[in-house]
Formats: sequence, C-alpha cells, structure tokens
Amino acid sequence: MNAPNLDLLFNPKSVAVIGASASPGKIGTITLLCTMAGGFKGKIYPINPNESEILGLKAYSSVKDVPDRIGLAIICVPADTVLLAIRECNEVGVKFGVVISAGFGELGEEGRKKQKEVIEEARKGEIRLVGPNCMGIGSAAPKLYATMNFTIPKAGDVSMIAQSATIVTLTTLMASSQGIGFNKYVSSGNEADLHMEDFLEYYADDPETKVVAAYIEGVREGRRFIDASREVTKNKPFVVLKGGKTAAGAAAASSHTGALSGADMIFDAVCVQTGIMRVSDHLEMIDLVKAFLLLPRPVGRKVGIVSGQGGMGVLMADACVKYGLEIPKLTEGSINELNTFLPYFWSHRNPIDVTAGFMGDLSALTKSLEVLLRQEDIHSVVCLPQVWSPLFSTISAQISDEMQDLFKSISVEMMEWMEETIINDFIKLKNKYGKPVIAIGTFTQSGSKSNRLLEENGIPVYETPDQVARVMSKMVEYAEYLRGKDI
Amino acid sequence: MNAPNLDLLFNPKSVAVIGASASPGKIGTITLLCTMAGGFKGKIYPINPNESEILGLKAYSSVKDVPDRIGLAIICVPADTVLLAIRECNEVGVKFGVVISAGFGELGEEGRKKQKEVIEEARKGEIRLVGPNCMGIGSAAPKLYATMNFTIPKAGDVSMIAQSATIVTLTTLMASSQGIGFNKYVSSGNEADLHMEDFLEYYADDPETKVVAAYIEGVREGRRFIDASREVTKNKPFVVLKGGKTAAGAAAASSHTGALSGADMIFDAVCVQTGIMRVSDHLEMIDLVKAFLLLPRPVGRKVGIVSGQGGMGVLMADACVKYGLEIPKLTEGSINELNTFLPYFWSHRNPIDVTAGFMGDLSALTKSLEVLLRQEDIHSVVCLPQVWSPLFSTISAQISDEMQDLFKSISVEMMEWMEETIINDFIKLKNKYGKPVIAIGTFTQSGSKSNRLLEENGIPVYETPDQVARVMSKMVEYAEYLRGKDI
Repeated sequence: MNAPNLDLLFNPKSVAVIGASASPGKIGTITLLCTMAGGFKGKIYPINPNESEILGLKAYSSVKDVPDRIGLAIICVPADTVLLAIRECNEVGVKFGVVISAGFGELGEEGRKKQKEVIEEARKGEIRLVGPNCMGIGSAAPKLYATMNFTIPKAGDVSMIAQSATIVTLTTLMASSQGIGFNKYVSSGNEADLHMEDFLEYYADDPETKVVAAYIEGVREGRRFIDASREVTKNKPFVVLKGGKTAAGAAAASSHTGALSGADMIFDAVCVQTGIMRVSDHLEMIDLVKAFLLLPRPVGRKVGIVSGQGGMGVLMADACVKYGLEIPKLTEGSINELNTFLPYFWSHRNPIDVTAGFMGDLSALTKSLEVLLRQEDIHSVVCLPQVWSPLFSTISAQISDEMQDLFKSISVEMMEWMEETIINDFIKLKNKYGKPVIAIGTFTQSGSKSNRLLEENGIPVYETPDQVARVMSKMVEYAEYLRGKDI
Repeated sequence: MNAPNLDLLFNPKSVAVIGASASPGKIGTITLLCTMAGGFKGKIYPINPNESEILGLKAYSSVKDVPDRIGLAIICVPADTVLLAIRECNEVGVKFGVVISAGFGELGEEGRKKQKEVIEEARKGEIRLVGPNCMGIGSAAPKLYATMNFTIPKAGDVSMIAQSATIVTLTTLMASSQGIGFNKYVSSGNEADLHMEDFLEYYADDPETKVVAAYIEGVREGRRFIDASREVTKNKPFVVLKGGKTAAGAAAASSHTGALSGADMIFDAVCVQTGIMRVSDHLEMIDLVKAFLLLPRPVGRKVGIVSGQGGMGVLMADACVKYGLEIPKLTEGSINELNTFLPYFWSHRNPIDVTAGFMGDLSALTKSLEVLLRQEDIHSVVCLPQVWSPLFSTISAQISDEMQDLFKSISVEMMEWMEETIINDFIKLKNKYGKPVIAIGTFTQSGSKSNRLLEENGIPVYETPDQVARVMSKMVEYAEYLRGKDI
C-alpha cells in the first residue's frame, strides 16, 4: 500500500462525532466539546440516534442522515458498534476516521479478531483509520482539536505522533505552557490501519512542520521506519521518546497498544544511523524541541560558560563533560580583556565566574558574555542571567507585613530591573554574534516575565546544567549527522 | 582541634552586621535587610563608621562601641578590612563570625596569604569563622536569616551545608516553594576555619535536624568526613550533590572556593561505604529530601504501578528497571479481584492500566491501588491520580470566550472534583496499609491544590517516571545500608 495523502485527515471541511453526547464524563461528550472549544473552522455534526440536539448543535441518527459531505469521522461508540459506524461511513464516502473507542488489539486474541473485522470493513470502502484505542487528533490550520481529553495546545511549528494518549497530552500541553506550539498531532493508538510510518512520511514533507516529535512503543515496519526517519531528519530535527526499553516496560506496552517493542540496542543503533535524537522523558522532549525551535545550529562542541554564581558554573562544566561537550581554555587575549573590567578575584578561566562582585557593575556579566562570543573556538555559550526574582518573590509569604514593602522595593523590584537590563543586553549580543546562547534560570515552567523575554528573543531558558548539556550535546550530534551525510 | 559546639552560631542572642549599609545594591545593605526581614528574635547592630542610623536601626562605628555582648558578627566589609573587623571582634569576645566578603583563598597565592592572616588573627581570640567568600547563614529557631542574597526559606526539618551560595539559595528557596522547610543552613565558602566536617558532626547530633543535605566541591579532611558522614547516616538520611566531578568542573571549583575535588570514583566509593545518597543536581536533591520527609522507608525493591494512562505506566516500568527496582507479577488472587471491577480490557498485569474506562467509575483506580497495597511482595506503589486540572487550566487562553464557561464547568471543574475524590481515597488507603505511596502529577513545582493535598498527607508528587524511580531506588539503598550495618 502506498503512503496515503493525509492532507484531508488534518484539514477536513467537516467532522462527524459518532457517539457524541452531552452527559458529563462520557468520552463522546468531551470529544464533541473539545472539537467545539477548539474553534474548528468547518462544520461539526454530532451523531447519536437518541438525541435531536447536543450542546446546541443539531444531532443526527447516522452519518447517512447528514445532508453534507463528511470529511472526517471521530468515532467514540463502544467497541462492538464500531464496525457498524465504519460501514455507514463507507456508505457515504467518508475519507478518514479516528477511532477513539478502546477494546481491540490491546486485549489479546478476542480483541485482535474484532480489530481485524473493523479493518476488513474499512477496506471495503475508501476510509482510512487512526486508532482504535487512541485519544484523537489535532491540527492548527483548521483549528481541529478532536480529542477525548480536551487537549488544545498552542498553535505552532512542531508536529507529533504518539503511541500514547498520555504522552501526547502531557507533552503538547506542558510545551504550550512554555510557549511552544504544535502544528499537527495524533495519538495513533493500536495503529490497526494508519501507523507511525505513515505519519512520519507525511510530516517529513509537510512544509508547516519544522520539528517532528514521536513517542514510540513499537515499530511495525522496520525498514520503512528507517527510511521515513531519514526523510524527516534530512530537513528537520526528529526527537523520539521510546517506551518499552526494558522487559517490564515492553510487557506493559504490549497490553497498552499491542506493540512489540524490540531490542533496545537495535533501536539505539537505528537512531545513530538515521539522525534521530532520543530522549528519556516528555520533559526532555520539550527541552530539546524548544532548543531546535529557538537556537541556530552550533558549529562544534566547545562551550563557554559565564555566571556570577560559582557553584552553578562548576556544575555546568561537569555536565558539559558528562555529555561529551568541551570547555575550551580562554585565550590570552580573552583573559587580558576580562582583567580590564572584572573584579580582581574573578575565576581567570572558563567557566567565567564574575563573582557576586558584579552586582556593583551589571555590565560585567554582559561584557564577559561578549568576550566568550568573540573567542573563535567557542561555539556556544551558557549564561546565567541572574533571573531569580520569581524565586525570591516566594519569600514574601515568610516575612512580616511591615518588611514586605521594603523587601519588594529593595530586593525584588531591584532584581527585576537588573534582570531586564541584563537580558536586553544579552539579546543584543546574541543577535550580533549569531552563536547559540542558552540561559539557566529558575522556575522556568511557570514562565516568569524575564524567562518569557529571553525565549521570545531566541535564548531558551532551562533550570539545570544537566538539561542544558543534554540539549546542547544533542544539537551538536544532529549537526554532525547532517555534516556526515554531506561528505 | 576538637569539634566546635555550634549552638551559639545557630542561636545567637545578638548579631552585628559589620559593613551594614542602606545604599541599594550593596552586600551590606541586603545582608542587613535580610536579617531584619527574616524576623530575627535577638538584637541587630549595624556597624558602619560613617552612619548613625541605617534602615531605622542605630548604627555603631565599631563592634567595640556596642553596649551589649555580641554573639555573632556578620562581616561584609571589603577583603582588606576584614582583618581589622576580626581583631575588634576578638577584643570584645565575639564567639562566631560569618565572613561574607570575597577576595581570599579563591584567588590563588595572594588571596591565600590574606586568608591565612585573617585566620591567624582569629586564633588570637575565641572567634570561630564561617567563610570567607560565603553567602551567610540561616537558622529557623531564632529566625536568623543573615544572607547577602535574601534567602529566607520556609522553616522545617532539613539542614544544609553548601560550598556554594547559589546551590544553597536555589535549593532552599525552590524546596520552600514545594512546602519543604529548613532548620539550619550555611554557605561555607572557602572554609578557612569552620568547614564541611564541623557542620556535619553538628547536624548528626542536632535533634532538630531530620534530613541532612550538602553541596560539596572538595573535602578537606577525608577520614573525618567519612566518620562524620557515618554519624549522620546512622540516624538520618544524608543527601549529597558533588560539584567538580570532571576535570573541567574541578578546575572551576578550585577558582570558586579553592577546593580540591579529588577523584570522583573515590567519592563514589565513600558514598557506598557511608550510606550517603548522591544526587546529580539541586532538583534531584529536593526530590529525594521530599521523599525522606514524607514517606515511610520501603521494605524492598518491588514496585506496583497503577494508572489510567498506559503510556505513563510503560515509562514508569522502564524507569524502575533502569534504577534497579523490580516489577513483580500480580498474584492470581490480585488478578481475579481486579477482574471483578475493571473493564475487561484492562492490562491484566503490573503495571495496572485501568484504561480511560475508569472515568465512568472513579473507584476503579482506588480499588486497584488497594489490590496492589494488599499484595504481600509489593513494597511500594506508584500511582497516577489523574491530577491534570492545573495543566488543562492552561487551555483556557486558547479557546473562545463563549466556550470558556462550558469548558470550565464540564472539564476543569469536573476534573477537580474527580481529583479530590480520588486523592482523598488514596490518602485513606495509604494510611491503612503504611507502605510508601508515590504519585506522578503535572506542574508539581507550581504547587496545585491537588498536589498540595497529596503532599500534606504524605504522598509526594513528582513529574516524571525517572524522578520517581531515582528517588525510590535511593530510599531502598539507604534502607539496605542501614540493614547491612545491623548484621
């Protein structure tokens, strides 16, 4: 079977929600509500033989009664009636169906038989299916968010495919809260028809997708997966979280989506060969996707570090080495220049510790950053722009009322002013030199004003040295993979 | 030199801030303000020869002019005048000094000479010193928070010693925002006089300290460090973050606090021999400290997992195996019992995936937890109590005004109600069986209502399977260390 064109799956003109309901807690209720709340630009047709109106929309007994061409059917009925729903979809020429209903291949022999019958029924017509046992689908252009758990992330440039509802929900929503948007996403469930490889091939060629992310429990067509992955990585970063790494996880995966996980070492080898970047959880996936969206590609492994916080510089250097990055020596020229404006007790090496003395001269931090950016063999720079005000704001609750005003005006307000000054200078330098600049901040997930300002201007913010080093090492690996292909 | 009694360092009756100021941005200003804001129960004496009043307090030219016995001197003057400050402290019999001033041993030969002179001066009297080049000190009982960066964490049961201002600040403040409180903490800086080992010995015997945390760049007295660590771990968990693991980090550490990091393998061996639990960053330190504060000690390595989210169950199983935990089989009795109330398509193994079907029957999740807690060879349980409302609340911004009310009432409010029901049942079961119960939630750092309810009742919440497995494996290791000592 050739790779299907999924344009109409992600851009339908009309959607039928089969099994739509208005009873609180039902899958059919949340799915319809989500489709409505998402602001779908086309028509929505609730299908339920027992209702004439649902959530303010006219309801129909069957897709056959809808006086319109239906582009996509979202199927939420119990497992035993899915077959009938598919048959009726085929009768009116529906092109795509998303089967949210569970109770199929994930259940062993009996479920697999039921799933086979559904697919055989689908093959009698033109309908292509996502699922069963999935969470739904999202697409930014038509504002299509047909999911059974209300996943309506921010619109943007990342597309995702996941063999788990939880992972796609967590990833898209948490990434959204950090300002990262999604173009298309799908929870592929048991993948009885359309599967991982179909979506990867589609995303590889999709001009609206800049970064591809996937959660994979098992690969169904090894050779095609490798080819599709190579197609993706040729033009865009491809970040993969793999479930079922261990025997215990693999067993769990088989009852989750009926997937066969395969040997983990083989998957690791596939990643090296195809330029896939593998992550260990959804938070690392978000970290890495954010880096690819915001940063220019690093030219090499050498990292400069500058902070006013010695301990964090030490941990950052440790983390870089742990992940195969290098901490080059400062040139004599750099040291001489730093000597002209840093307090005499600065660290005199990379990482540059401007020490707490910089509080008397804010420009010390910025000028040090510029020295690093100018040194030729430094390919990217990690900086600690002292974004601490969100953290210190939490102190307010601890101190007496009469001290709070003084605390705020001398400490938090002063900090915020300092932060803004430093950040604006950092942004100017980043733009001037074009090398990747990454920041370590605090409370990044809650998104403080300072962190937003940094990220909106192309300086991603992370909480720990480990996060930064992991992200940078993977960016370097991808750059090296692409260069290796050129040779 | 014998181990000094640090009671009066952590519980002084009066504090002099030498170098106190009211000019914004000066170390002496923030330190005085922090001491005042913290609500110190004793007297505060600002020392500055050029002022008669600072921030509303009467100022003195020298400690010699203060008409009171001074328990503790906080020294914020420039490096070159520290010597004089110490001399004057000795003249009036001050017992302890915290030297915040930088410009000493961290600077090579010249700085080391200056540091040696300060110590020689101190030895002429009774004064014992913290620092130089440190951030200050905190102690909950007298509400003493004398720091140069406004670190006033929540009061509680953890005591910390750190060879880095940044790490102690980040750790204590971020932990506070998660509800974890500190009893005593100190940033030890260059450790010219009092050092790591002194504080560890003190914390080991301190009845107010339940958990000890340390950030270590270098150990000055190896043998004594090992003995002190054993004293700590005999009665309380001891969590260590080590900086300077790699050559690059070690070089950075030497210019940070003049510490010699030593071979990392040796430190690892010391950890095994002394029962120290080593973590890789300050966030993992907070995770582990939280677990020790909230959980009973696990009896063994076998973990039960229950969720309504298959993908997360798979990743949780993977993470457990990665960190040496075990996923035991469900007994026939457990399976039979689960069959009586779970939808027929549940996972039929550990991890228990009750599937999204549980939304129709909330008790399915709770009853499954009870089956796991009752199975004898399961020593602790990881549950996913579906605390998703904080995450879904972030959707509001994405949807149209007219849909928001509907969304809130059907989705977020319903979720919150479900979460509260499930959580209260979880808490009852946890109390009934006494085994460790750990939850995976989302947005834990921001502290949602549900997460607070769980943690206030002894169920710690983490964001990723990796975090949970790391924490549990270290708790098991500590339990095994303690059992090994009994034999």
